[in-house]
Amino acid sequence: MIYLDNAATTQPFGGAMAQAGEFVQKCYFNPSAQYGGEASAALKEARASILEKIADPAQFELIFTSGGTEADNHALLACGRRNVVISAGEHAAVYEAGVHLKNAGVELRFAPVGQDGGVREEALLSLVDERTSLVSVVHVNNETGAVNDIFGLARRVKEKNPRCAFHSDGVQAFGKLPVRLNGDIDLYSVSAHKIGGLRGTGALIKRKGFPLQPLLHGGGQEGGLRSGTENLFGIMDFAFAAAEKFKNAEADLARMRELRERLWQLLDQDLYVRLSPADGSPYILTVSARGLRGEILQRLCAERGVIVGTGSACSSKKPHSRVLEACGYKGDVLDGVLRMSFSPATNEEEIVLAAQALNAAAAALKARIG
Amino acid sequence: MIYLDNAATTQPFGGAMAQAGEFVQKCYFNPSAQYGGEASAALKEARASILEKIADPAQFELIFTSGGTEADNHALLACGRRNVVISAGEHAAVYEAGVHLKNAGVELRFAPVGQDGGVREEALLSLVDERTSLVSVVHVNNETGAVNDIFGLARRVKEKNPRCAFHSDGVQAFGKLPVRLNGDIDLYSVSAHKIGGLRGTGALIKRKGFPLQPLLHGGGQEGGLRSGTENLFGIMDFAFAAAEKFKNAEADLARMRELRERLWQLLDQDLYVRLSPADGSPYILTVSARGLRGEILQRLCAERGVIVGTGSACSSKKPHSRVLEACGYKGDVLDGVLRMSFSPATNEEEIVLAAQALNAAAAALKARIG
Repeated sequence: MIYLDNAATTQPFGGAMAQAGEFVQKCYFNPSAQYGGEASAALKEARASILEKIADPAQFELIFTSGGTEADNHALLACGRRNVVISAGEHAAVYEAGVHLKNAGVELRFAPVGQDGGVREEALLSLVDERTSLVSVVHVNNETGAVNDIFGLARRVKEKNPRCAFHSDGVQAFGKLPVRLNGDIDLYSVSAHKIGGLRGTGALIKRKGFPLQPLLHGGGQEGGLRSGTENLFGIMDFAFAAAEKFKNAEADLARMRELRERLWQLLDQDLYVRLSPADGSPYILTVSARGLRGEILQRLCAERGVIVGTGSACSSKKPHSRVLEACGYKGDVLDGVLRMSFSPATNEEEIVLAAQALNAAAAALKARIG
Repeated sequence: MIYLDNAATTQPFGGAMAQAGEFVQKCYFNPSAQYGGEASAALKEARASILEKIADPAQFELIFTSGGTEADNHALLACGRRNVVISAGEHAAVYEAGVHLKNAGVELRFAPVGQDGGVREEALLSLVDERTSLVSVVHVNNETGAVNDIFGLARRVKEKNPRCAFHSDGVQAFGKLPVRLNGDIDLYSVSAHKIGGLRGTGALIKRKGFPLQPLLHGGGQEGGLRSGTENLFGIMDFAFAAAEKFKNAEADLARMRELRERLWQLLDQDLYVRLSPADGSPYILTVSARGLRGEILQRLCAERGVIVGTGSACSSKKPHSRVLEACGYKGDVLDGVLRMSFSPATNEEEIVLAAQALNAAAAALKARIG
């Protein structure tokens, strides 16, 4: 099997599971308990090791969550007041949390995206005013791979309204692109299962001093900001997987860029158009077999042992991608969307075979429908 | 080491972790993806197998959450409107979610508890009126083991206000006491890590037709009620652990009752008073070494290899237990509280050694302070 849907979820890193499992089997104590010193130390170490990979621990802190969705919801629901600005390219976790705010009376403003899925910066800034409580812009668009300049945007948002919070969903950037948070970013969401960790664990990284309210209330874990007994297994697994992923992040990035371009070059460009920008995340190549149906192509590829995505799996129940519609694409392009996403385990042979499967599937389907 | 803090968290069942780990290593696909059929089937099976253990799947459905805290918060925050009635014996996850509602303008009413920690039923019912949107009563008090008659209470609440929702935190009951939900219970919270599963997984069980709003918004997983990529590892581990725990639940219960009474009989009753009621959960024995400090006794016991709790680990940062204060206990009793909680792995030899450690610790401390 050739698995090219790593932006949905990656294969769990077995070594990380084994290490985390061994630890919690032996040291299963509640880190908050008096006798939980060893568990508490492991939690602290995992927290520090993940945080330091993308931020200065003197300036930021890390709150473990049940995943990227909770982290995004926490940012939106805790910070969303008078008006909130998000891009039209946000992941469902930000978008739907925003809609929830809107239903509760908050004014939700959408900044348009360009054809590649990146937010239009001037348009976004024009939506920010003195009553804007939060701006949320995805770092890497999970459907196209477009990379937003969140640092430049955050600086300009703060210039316009210094009290406005800035959040970015960094789920598709963390462990993949070089990221170093600075003081203009208040909140940043990451997830374990996109980089070899397990589903069910993520984190919200918060600038120290930023006044965040909790989303889940109870025993006061995570400095009072996220109650619930700490998921030490998932957290340690996340830390081990992150250590592994970050070890070769730079080399991986260069190799992913080669694999992405190789795949694109091998695709029959009479059948496929490319939606992912050249300067987008090298981990994602989104194309469309214009006029054909992506989900049928996906099935035909799967029959040949090649697993590809059709846009965001999270919103796979809707006929067309909300985000790609916002990019300005119409029915025939939207119908045929396929997303191929890579991991360091992806190799060139797989890319060649995947391209063959994709070309054969599109040609066969095109022939069948005349 | 003798571990008697199982009400905080149990040792993970290694077999469950191994089975779940093997599965997700091989079938790591997103259950929501088109090619995720096998993952989706495993999720469905886990859901059904947990639900059927305490409810009729024709009448109830199960929403996986990140644990008991999220399940409790979901019930409270989604259902809390005009006024909400909770008992003074609730776990912090219900209590603090209630306080959050209160800060948002909801009227929060506390039903008093008796000395054993069980809610006073008539007093609770007198607080319910036509504007009450939710009543939440813990099934087993996690600090004393008192068992509330949630079925009788729910029926009487519904008689008084049929539109009022009834939720119970069942975290300390699930897999331990015989539970069969009926139509008077709208929502019931359970957790994996109290019965050999892992921290980070739990569920909110919901009566079919009960109109629950989501707490986390996004990709629409869990029937739209709990977004976030499903934590299949934690969920399968939960299902395996629950299958194991429920296999012998009845025999375990009888054995726990014997162990609890044996421990109590072996304790020096000049040093310890018993706070747990005789008809409480046999998994919990809470006592107080009146006039001594529980956390020092806990440390002295730990030095002898015996791990006991001091009330709820979740709220261990506060000087006294809010719940035991509500039971009417005063300073000298509150200072000396220790909670011993059992699992099927606990054996009689451990109970004898634990009693020796507890007696020696209290005698030594008493001698030391004169």
